[in-house]
Amino acid sequence: MAENLVKTQSNKKIIQLLNSQKARQFRENYLDLHVYEQAQIFTELNSQQRARLYRYLTAKEVGDMFDAIEDEPEEVVKYFEEMTPQYAANVIDEMYTDNAVDILAYVPKKDLAGYLRLLPTEKAAEIREMLHYEDKTAGAIMSTEYVAIAGNQTVRSAMHVVKREASDAETIYYVYVVGSDNKLIGVLTLRDLLINDDDQMITDIMTTPVMSVKVSDDQAEVAQTIRDYNFLAIPVTDYENKLIGIINVDDIIDVIDEESAEDYSGLAAVDTEEVADNPIKAASNRLPWLIVLLLLGMSTTTLISHYEGMISQASILAIFVSSITGTAGNAGTQSLAVAVRRLASRDEDQPSVYRQFFIELLTGLVTGLVTGLTIFLIVGFWKQNFILGFVIGMAMMCAITVANLAGSFIPNLMDKIGVDPAVASGPFISTLSDLTSVLIYFNIAKLFMKFFMGT
Amino acid sequence: MAENLVKTQSNKKIIQLLNSQKARQFRENYLDLHVYEQAQIFTELNSQQRARLYRYLTAKEVGDMFDAIEDEPEEVVKYFEEMTPQYAANVIDEMYTDNAVDILAYVPKKDLAGYLRLLPTEKAAEIREMLHYEDKTAGAIMSTEYVAIAGNQTVRSAMHVVKREASDAETIYYVYVVGSDNKLIGVLTLRDLLINDDDQMITDIMTTPVMSVKVSDDQAEVAQTIRDYNFLAIPVTDYENKLIGIINVDDIIDVIDEESAEDYSGLAAVDTEEVADNPIKAASNRLPWLIVLLLLGMSTTTLISHYEGMISQASILAIFVSSITGTAGNAGTQSLAVAVRRLASRDEDQPSVYRQFFIELLTGLVTGLVTGLTIFLIVGFWKQNFILGFVIGMAMMCAITVANLAGSFIPNLMDKIGVDPAVASGPFISTLSDLTSVLIYFNIAKLFMKFFMGT
Repeated sequence: MAENLVKTQSNKKIIQLLNSQKARQFRENYLDLHVYEQAQIFTELNSQQRARLYRYLTAKEVGDMFDAIEDEPEEVVKYFEEMTPQYAANVIDEMYTDNAVDILAYVPKKDLAGYLRLLPTEKAAEIREMLHYEDKTAGAIMSTEYVAIAGNQTVRSAMHVVKREASDAETIYYVYVVGSDNKLIGVLTLRDLLINDDDQMITDIMTTPVMSVKVSDDQAEVAQTIRDYNFLAIPVTDYENKLIGIINVDDIIDVIDEESAEDYSGLAAVDTEEVADNPIKAASNRLPWLIVLLLLGMSTTTLISHYEGMISQASILAIFVSSITGTAGNAGTQSLAVAVRRLASRDEDQPSVYRQFFIELLTGLVTGLVTGLTIFLIVGFWKQNFILGFVIGMAMMCAITVANLAGSFIPNLMDKIGVDPAVASGPFISTLSDLTSVLIYFNIAKLFMKFFMGT
Repeated sequence: MAENLVKTQSNKKIIQLLNSQKARQFRENYLDLHVYEQAQIFTELNSQQRARLYRYLTAKEVGDMFDAIEDEPEEVVKYFEEMTPQYAANVIDEMYTDNAVDILAYVPKKDLAGYLRLLPTEKAAEIREMLHYEDKTAGAIMSTEYVAIAGNQTVRSAMHVVKREASDAETIYYVYVVGSDNKLIGVLTLRDLLINDDDQMITDIMTTPVMSVKVSDDQAEVAQTIRDYNFLAIPVTDYENKLIGIINVDDIIDVIDEESAEDYSGLAAVDTEEVADNPIKAASNRLPWLIVLLLLGMSTTTLISHYEGMISQASILAIFVSSITGTAGNAGTQSLAVAVRRLASRDEDQPSVYRQFFIELLTGLVTGLVTGLTIFLIVGFWKQNFILGFVIGMAMMCAITVANLAGSFIPNLMDKIGVDPAVASGPFISTLSDLTSVLIYFNIAKLFMKFFMGT
C-alpha cells in the first residue's frame, strides 16, 4: 500500500511537470519509467495534457508506450485522432505489428486508408494482411517481429544477425531457421547459440522438427501448446509451412485470461469486465440476460400454473418446489462446469463423449440417490409423512439425474455446432432444469397424491 | 486430429521398444522427444515398464522429464518410491528446485529425511528452506536457478558468466546484478548484454531500480505484476532485499490457470478438475456441496412452509415463487461474479468499497425496476390482474436489489476476513437470495392480499 502511495505521488509530480511545460524534465522523469507505468500515467491525462505529451515525445517513444497500454482499442483510436495523421502513422509504425493491428481494427475505414498511405509500404502491406485474420486465431495475435536466419552459416555469423535485429524483434530468445522459400526448418534458442562453439554450423545444432501452429489455429489451442511445452514463443506458419509470425508468451497470458474470464462470465450470465463506476452501464450490461432468463423462466411458471389445481388441493406440495428446483439446478451447474472446463482444456486422453454421458448418468444417479435419501428422511421426520418424503426424494433424484445429463450434454452439443459453450450457460441450465424438475415433481406427486394426503 | 493419431502411434512404438528391452533404440527415440512428450509417455507406463525406464535412463534424463510432468505430486512421490533411494535423490538433484519442492512436500517425513541426506548439502539446505514457504506465496513457486553477477565487471566478462551458467539456470534471459551481500541492485536482459559494447561496465548499462517481489507475496499478485509488465521472469527478495530466487513466466501461467479454475469452480460449487472416468469419485466430489446447499435451502423451504396458510388461500401465489427466486438468484450471481473478478484483478484505481456498494445498490434498483416492470406487465395481462402483477413486480424489484447488494457485499466481506471469496460463492448467494426473496415476496403479498384476491 505504501508503495502505491509513493507511486501515485511521483506520478502526480510527473503530470505537474507536463502542466508547467517543463519539457526536458518531463521527458527525463517520464521516460525513466517502465513503459507499463508510462501508459498508466498517459491514461490519466486530459486532452490538453496529451496534446502537450505528443509534442514532447517522439513517435517512437509514444509507440513503445502504446505497446503497453491497456485501454480498450476504441479509446486508443481516439488518441490517434488527436495527433496529426503523419505523427499517428509514425506511432503506428513504431508499435509491434500485432498491437497496432489490434487497434487499427477499430479505426474507421477512411482513416485507416489514410494511415496506411503514410506508412512505409512494407509495414502497410503487413498490417493490411494481418487485418484479414479472423479474430481469436493464431494469425490475429501473432507478431511479425521475429528473428529468422538461414541454416547454412556458423553460430558466429548467426550471432551477428541476432545482435543486429535485437533492437527491433519482439523476442530474440528464439531464432528460427528458414529455407530459401521462408519454409520453417528448425529452431534454436539464444541459449543454444551461446553454449555452442562459434564455428558450429546452425543446421547441426538446430532443433528439428519445429513445433509450430497454423495461422488459422484457434488461440485457445495455441495457448494450450505454449503452456504444455513451457515455450516463451511459438512460430506461426501458413499452409505451405512458411514462417509468417510468432506468438509470444505475454500475448498468450492475455489469451488465457480472456478465455477464462469468458468462461466465468458465461457461468454467471454477465460480462464481468463491466465498467466499475456507472450503475446505468452496469444495469444495461446485466439486464439483457436477466430479462431473457426471466422470460425463459416464465415457462416454468406457466407449467406450475398448470398444476394450480393440485396445489390448492395440497398446498404442502408448493413448499418443496424451490428445494427440488434449487438442488437440481445446483447439480446441473456442477455437471456443466465440469463439462465446460473439460472442453476448454482440450486434453487428448479424455473419455469419448458417449462414455462421458454414461459416466455423468451414473454420477447423477449416485448423487441423486444420496440427496434424495437425505430429503426423504428430512421430510419424513419433519412432516411425519414418509410417503410425502418418498415423493419429494424420488422427484429430487430424478430431477438431479436429468439436470446432470443436461449439464453435460448441452455444452458438448453447443461445442459440436460451433457455439461457445460458455455463453450464459449456468443460468440457462438452471432455468432448463427448473422446468424439467417441476414437470417430474408434479407428475410423481400426482401418482402418489391419494397416498400422502392420507385419509 | 490426424497429427494426434500419428503421435499416438509413435508413442506406441517407443513403448514397444521398452517392452522388447531395446535399451539403445529406446533411449534414442525417447530422448529425441520434447520433455513434455517424454512425460506424457511416462504417465502411460506400468510399473514394470517404469522400472525398466529407470535402468535405461540416467537420473539427469529422468529429472529433466519430471520437470515437465503434469501428474499430481502424490503420484510422482510414488514414482520416487519405486527407485533406489540414491537414484531418487539424484533425480531430485537434477530437477529444478521449485519443481522438486512441489513434490517433496508430499513425501512422508521419514522418506524426506532420507532423500535429503543423500543430496548434496547445499541443495538439501535449499530444499529444506523452500519447504517452509507458505503455499501460494512467491517463495513457494520461485526457482533458485538464476544467473546473478557482480556489477563491477564488463559486458564481456558478464557474458562469460552467463555462458558458464547457461546449462543450469532455468532462464538466462535475465541477468541479475547483486552487491557483495547478495542485495539486488540491478537487472539486465540478455538482449542488453548483446547490444552493448563488450567493454561497457555492467553498472553503467543495468536497469535500476529492479522490479521485484517479496518472498511472502501472494502468488496472484506476482502474476498480476508479470502480466502488467510483460516480464519473462521476476526476482524474489527477502526482507533485506537479498535476491533469493526468481519466478518464471511459465510458472505464472500455471498460477493464472489455477486461480481462474478456482474462481470458476467456486461459482459452480464443484472442483472442475475432477477425475474424468469414475462416477463414484465424481459424485463424492460433488455431493458435499450439494448436501450443504440442500440443507441451507431447507431454510427457504421452512420459510415457505410458514406461509402454507396463505398459499392454500391463494394458490396463485405459489406459481410465482420460482420466478422471483430464480431471477433474484441470477441477479445476485451476476453481481457476485463482477465483485469476485474485481477482487481477483486487484486493480489499483478502483472505486472504494463503500462506493462499490452504492453503485451496486443503484444497479440493483435499475435492473430491479426494469425487470419488475416486465413481470408486472406479463402477469397483469396474463392473469388479467394488475394488482397481482404489481405485487409480483414489486417483490421482484426488492428481491433483486437485495440479492445484488448481497452479491457484492459478501465476497468483499469474505476477502476482508481472509477467506477466498470464490469458494462455492455462486450457489451460496442463490440460496441466500432464495431466502430473502421468499420473505420479501410473501410479506408484500400479505399486504395486498385482499386487493388482488378481488371480491
